[in-house]
Amino acid sequence: MTLALGIDPGTATTGYGLVRLMPDGELVAVSFGIISTPKDATPSARLEMLYNDLRKLLKKHKPDTAAVEKLFFSRNVTTAIAVGQARGVVMLSLQQAEIEVFEYTPNEVKQAVAGYGSADKKQVQEMVRALLQLDSIPKPDDAADALAIAITHLNTKRY
Amino acid sequence: MTLALGIDPGTATTGYGLVRLMPDGELVAVSFGIISTPKDATPSARLEMLYNDLRKLLKKHKPDTAAVEKLFFSRNVTTAIAVGQARGVVMLSLQQAEIEVFEYTPNEVKQAVAGYGSADKKQVQEMVRALLQLDSIPKPDDAADALAIAITHLNTKRY
Repeated sequence: MTLALGIDPGTATTGYGLVRLMPDGELVAVSFGIISTPKDATPSARLEMLYNDLRKLLKKHKPDTAAVEKLFFSRNVTTAIAVGQARGVVMLSLQQAEIEVFEYTPNEVKQAVAGYGSADKKQVQEMVRALLQLDSIPKPDDAADALAIAITHLNTKRY
Repeated sequence: MTLALGIDPGTATTGYGLVRLMPDGELVAVSFGIISTPKDATPSARLEMLYNDLRKLLKKHKPDTAAVEKLFFSRNVTTAIAVGQARGVVMLSLQQAEIEVFEYTPNEVKQAVAGYGSADKKQVQEMVRALLQLDSIPKPDDAADALAIAITHLNTKRY
């Protein structure tokens, strides 16, 4: 009955996905979506909004464990710093809620969800839909990515 | 009597420097040092320690304004993400304390403190010492860098 939270942190949009592993091995999507912050707010104000929304989410769902995507590269370092800032706030709120954070590379996620590391985005999303027995692919993309991270975590750790 | 906080965020060590601008234009070092976190702690635990120590520092000194270094490049993206994470936590704690954060590039700091953008680290540190009328160069380097950022901010904004 482990409840895993997957997070895909970003400056403008942070995706989240909560997946519960049932005793029979079934995976159930408990909740998923995105936390968006307004473009016209300062970077610091946007980080505070992200922090406050995450705290609410953690308080409401009380996940047992959490995972974020591990990034190795990025188009540029300015982007990496910005993603890092959002990631730092995510890690802080999880730590404050006493939830251990695990990290998976994009290839590990593809491997765990679609069965091969070179799967494309669409294939991963379709597998997320199928594994969670949803009628359609979860939207938006950042939420689907977060669900994929949560599934990867549950399948890797085999709680 | 503006009190400026300069911060040089890092994963292992975050430098801070508090500089007060006196009515006669004199700059006084109020406090400076580093926040270090133990290597054997998890990245999330280290971010929480940084957050807690920063909150204490802000509560104690109540700075009026703050500045951090703006980074454009880094040896690698993994480093950039890690620095970004620390930076995100710094920006969050300043935002929560309702302190606006300003950013300066390393060249702007060199220009403001030493008078020319190509000054080397040692020259900047010596100017920090001289401007703050300290007996010796502030140690460690991260604390001296943070004081340089605070001085840059006060000289740029001319409060």
